[in-house]
Amino acid sequence: MTAISAEDFAARLERCARAVENALQDALSDQPCANEIARPERLLNAMRHAGLAGGKRLRPFLLIESAALFGVTQQAAMPAALALECVHCYSLAHDDLPAMDNADTRRGRPALHKAFDEATAILAGDALLTLAFDLITRDETHPDPAVRIALTRALARMAGIGGMAGGQMLDLEGEGRFGDVTKPDVARLQQMKTGALLRFACISGAMLGQADKAAQDALDIYGRALGEAFQIADDLLDVEGDAAMLGKQTGQDAAMGKATFITLLGIDGARNRLRELLDQANAALTPFGARADVLRATAQFIAARKN
Amino acid sequence: MTAISAEDFAARLERCARAVENALQDALSDQPCANEIARPERLLNAMRHAGLAGGKRLRPFLLIESAALFGVTQQAAMPAALALECVHCYSLAHDDLPAMDNADTRRGRPALHKAFDEATAILAGDALLTLAFDLITRDETHPDPAVRIALTRALARMAGIGGMAGGQMLDLEGEGRFGDVTKPDVARLQQMKTGALLRFACISGAMLGQADKAAQDALDIYGRALGEAFQIADDLLDVEGDAAMLGKQTGQDAAMGKATFITLLGIDGARNRLRELLDQANAALTPFGARADVLRATAQFIAARKN
Repeated sequence: MTAISAEDFAARLERCARAVENALQDALSDQPCANEIARPERLLNAMRHAGLAGGKRLRPFLLIESAALFGVTQQAAMPAALALECVHCYSLAHDDLPAMDNADTRRGRPALHKAFDEATAILAGDALLTLAFDLITRDETHPDPAVRIALTRALARMAGIGGMAGGQMLDLEGEGRFGDVTKPDVARLQQMKTGALLRFACISGAMLGQADKAAQDALDIYGRALGEAFQIADDLLDVEGDAAMLGKQTGQDAAMGKATFITLLGIDGARNRLRELLDQANAALTPFGARADVLRATAQFIAARKN
Repeated sequence: MTAISAEDFAARLERCARAVENALQDALSDQPCANEIARPERLLNAMRHAGLAGGKRLRPFLLIESAALFGVTQQAAMPAALALECVHCYSLAHDDLPAMDNADTRRGRPALHKAFDEATAILAGDALLTLAFDLITRDETHPDPAVRIALTRALARMAGIGGMAGGQMLDLEGEGRFGDVTKPDVARLQQMKTGALLRFACISGAMLGQADKAAQDALDIYGRALGEAFQIADDLLDVEGDAAMLGKQTGQDAAMGKATFITLLGIDGARNRLRELLDQANAALTPFGARADVLRATAQFIAARKN
């Protein structure tokens, strides 16, 4: 068991989310940067709608806490954390588009394409993705250019065809075909669509801290387990969750004919797998002792989350 | 006048386009790379449709020839050139979407969203943009990580809100409002939408060659002049061009109520400005003597292009 209470963890997560929100606000301010021709106001407003919508900011938190394990301050980890969050926010903006998941709302507010229009939502997503690479390549991300380039490369790989974008494609292809989709298919799809960015959060923390190979591998194992646990918890919420608390409709996966961990494992099977993954995540953290208590509490939080 | 004949230039441009096509084919092959979870076939096919559509490959050519000025081989400049071309191809895929320019064809073939569907076109664009950052951060781009990170950062800035994506937003906002749009507005919009990537092509060549500050500045001036010249030539083609040779409809700008250099300067005024820009581009190349003859011929080609 973790030494951090659920209340202490929630407070820590919320403090971090506020710091991320403030830093993102600065990154999306209308102060033009050097070498920039101009910042079109409408596009910037759309990026703010997509980027400053609150939320748990779980990915930046994971990155910051993984980096903290290696002595990196929150401030030092923030630029990489913001880059990661920009990639996440772009993916939500594009996923909500009519041609994709056709979602009208997001976190209780109009989805980006509803608040603006489709063209602006596509462009704002593009611009957020591009901003991620602008942010992560800045000097503030890490003094050593070799570390910055490794981080940038990892982010591109995790977000691209072999990661998040590819996973979203597999997800769209799988709609209405849940009878044909096997457990390894779903595991691979989710490892790409959701898992890749969560995994990046953990390994990039270790990269920022210039951790040795063994420590980086441990964070990679932790991140992979966390990614799958996150998705199983998500699938369980879609079946058992409280729509009001979630801020979105439940039962969506079944309605769209999507294969999920629940359709493949059943509810009990999914809960068992979740416990297994939690054990894996904790086992990976053993070498770090009590210093990894926050990451243990994070795994616990992800497995038990209610929204 | 340039010492390279139009025929020799055309042959050189075509040889380079073939080399770029082959290298892009490799980059978009289905060989999974290390650390990659999987490459979804449909997404990869869509990326190939968008990326392997032929064309002059003018941006990679400019990057490769700018780099050659500083002793960089075509092979050494190729990874950065491919990254740039991926950004260009993603922008075409997204610009053609129904919510944007709603174009059904591109280079005489179905536009990406027609050949596949909208969701796939959005995702393939996203994945091409992300692949650009994957490619440009690779070791093969340049042995020095500091050079790689500077290139990556410049690409992100030129493609982002202060560059191409921002310019596309301004362009969409300007449709139907050409009476309200001034010459500085159009110049700024085009400097962002089209100019930024052409400018990147030229300055990144100098960066790859680790040119001194004066030489980098000269290539920047050349690239800016080239960018504006490219757009004026484009606007002239939309008014005077041969639709069959262009492979797209002419008169589109007027039909969409877009302010262009022609609506603002008139045809003669636009031609005069084009000559001015050609002089600027050539003047910037003076310090390089005969070594810059290919870049001189490129400027000439861009100003006089027929498609």
